[in-house]
Amino acid sequence: MDSLKTPKGTTDESPRQCFLYEEIIEKIRGVFVLYGAVPISTPTFEMKSILTNKYGEDTKLIYDLKDQGGEICALRYDLTVPFARYLASNKIRKMKRYQIGRVYRRDQPSIVKGRLREFMQADFDIAGECIRMMADAEVISCVDRILKEFEIGEFKIKVNDRRILTSILEAVGVPCESYGTVCSTIDKIEKMSWKDISKEFIQKGLSEHQVNMIRKYMEMSGKENVLKLLRECPAYEIERCKEGVHDMEELFKFCRILGCEGSLVMDVSLARGLDYYTGMILEAEYIGKSVGSVIGGGRYDNLTENLGELQKTLHKE
Amino acid sequence: MDSLKTPKGTTDESPRQCFLYEEIIEKIRGVFVLYGAVPISTPTFEMKSILTNKYGEDTKLIYDLKDQGGEICALRYDLTVPFARYLASNKIRKMKRYQIGRVYRRDQPSIVKGRLREFMQADFDIAGECIRMMADAEVISCVDRILKEFEIGEFKIKVNDRRILTSILEAVGVPCESYGTVCSTIDKIEKMSWKDISKEFIQKGLSEHQVNMIRKYMEMSGKENVLKLLRECPAYEIERCKEGVHDMEELFKFCRILGCEGSLVMDVSLARGLDYYTGMILEAEYIGKSVGSVIGGGRYDNLTENLGELQKTLHKE
Repeated sequence: MDSLKTPKGTTDESPRQCFLYEEIIEKIRGVFVLYGAVPISTPTFEMKSILTNKYGEDTKLIYDLKDQGGEICALRYDLTVPFARYLASNKIRKMKRYQIGRVYRRDQPSIVKGRLREFMQADFDIAGECIRMMADAEVISCVDRILKEFEIGEFKIKVNDRRILTSILEAVGVPCESYGTVCSTIDKIEKMSWKDISKEFIQKGLSEHQVNMIRKYMEMSGKENVLKLLRECPAYEIERCKEGVHDMEELFKFCRILGCEGSLVMDVSLARGLDYYTGMILEAEYIGKSVGSVIGGGRYDNLTENLGELQKTLHKE
Repeated sequence: MDSLKTPKGTTDESPRQCFLYEEIIEKIRGVFVLYGAVPISTPTFEMKSILTNKYGEDTKLIYDLKDQGGEICALRYDLTVPFARYLASNKIRKMKRYQIGRVYRRDQPSIVKGRLREFMQADFDIAGECIRMMADAEVISCVDRILKEFEIGEFKIKVNDRRILTSILEAVGVPCESYGTVCSTIDKIEKMSWKDISKEFIQKGLSEHQVNMIRKYMEMSGKENVLKLLRECPAYEIERCKEGVHDMEELFKFCRILGCEGSLVMDVSLARGLDYYTGMILEAEYIGKSVGSVIGGGRYDNLTENLGELQKTLHKE
């Protein structure tokens, strides 16, 4: 049978599965449209240069196309960077879009857990200026609506702010250039024991004292009260931590207004692996289900501009 | 701007285009379901070995993934070979399925003509035994229905039989091993002048006399009367030509019964580039529109079995 298998980490979908996925996608698309998004579609592969250095440690998981005597291309790793590229190349400054499509990660796949090398993502993004934290709250509201739509059970939407996280690392004395790699360990806190987490931190150059300090911060989780606790911490001395805490407070306020505050949880250990996040980050999970996080995302303020810079830089040559 | 472009032969779809494509896909899907098909979905890339030697000369247009220390994979070239692989690997003998998805061809793209390197295909296939030529007629009926659905104007569905074509080549004295490459030149007859076609034939080793003989056959086009003309030709001495002509007669008969004979045209110059076709082949186009063929397909009797053999062969090693 081996010669007729699909590549590692990919699967066929039977008619029954296709019908089910179609139903799921239709539900999600319905909510996206309700929140005022329009669809766009981007190619399955991008110029490799567009994808490089956007995903931190995960960059190594990008699937390259073979160089067959043309451009150097790679399969899209997510739909976020292609969206930023779409905005930059069309000089669009304001857009609310959705895109539902397959993405590709050359990861060690865990088929049992539903983690594949080729899988579907449904993205909702708001580009452009609006009232500070209003777009972030709208995204939370959209996530809340989708999770309710499926009527599977109780869920929580965990939020954090990248600036809070990096301020904590600064306060603990982690060197700036290690933030990315340390964050990708923090990202694993829920999935691994503290023993293994500590080991990884130490491998990445942290002292035992630093690990213990980080742990204290990471155990802060709850509702808005966490933000009050943070105000008492040394990290709060750092300006961007103040901004982060303030934005989180605004987020809770807007979410109350939008009626989606019930499921919201402030979790200082939430990190998200990808490099491009700059502010609010989020992850949602159903409570008591073992599937883990089902939705993730965050604010990425500079991605389009960075691509624009890439454009400028390359133009100078 | 160059650094923010999509790879050659690929495009972004704007919201307006997405809505339009969605409408088109919904129309096509509606007809597929009406004809009793169920959806399946297969990965964007396959094991390279599955795709090799199925597409004749076009095999060189397959996009390979970079060897990053794993399996050797390639982007799917069409949805037909993946369907045959799906049948073989799931040991399914009878199925009517549709699949709508993107396929990839490392061709010289003509964006103006809408020929891209990444584009959408909507496939409808019937696997398994039924009354001889009944499935073929059902496919024609489905094509006829879809083309009517769009209300763009008059269209024709050209049909031919691969066995008639190869019998003609045999009668003309073309060596067996050149059928594939000669067919791929025949496939270009509508797009190129006879002067260029002749040149290509001569390059491929045919004599001027042979080219003239082929040309006489290729100019046979019309309704069922072409089949009568074929009965008078030297090629008809060959047994598989008789079978082909007989099957085409049956096809016209069934299409009359199904009410889709009006648009049907017998065209001896229809060749189709792909190697896997064994019997009826078809191509449809709107009359007076310059977009060329909009639908193509045919009967491929041995594809699943061939994959099965591949399986057996590889198992012996």
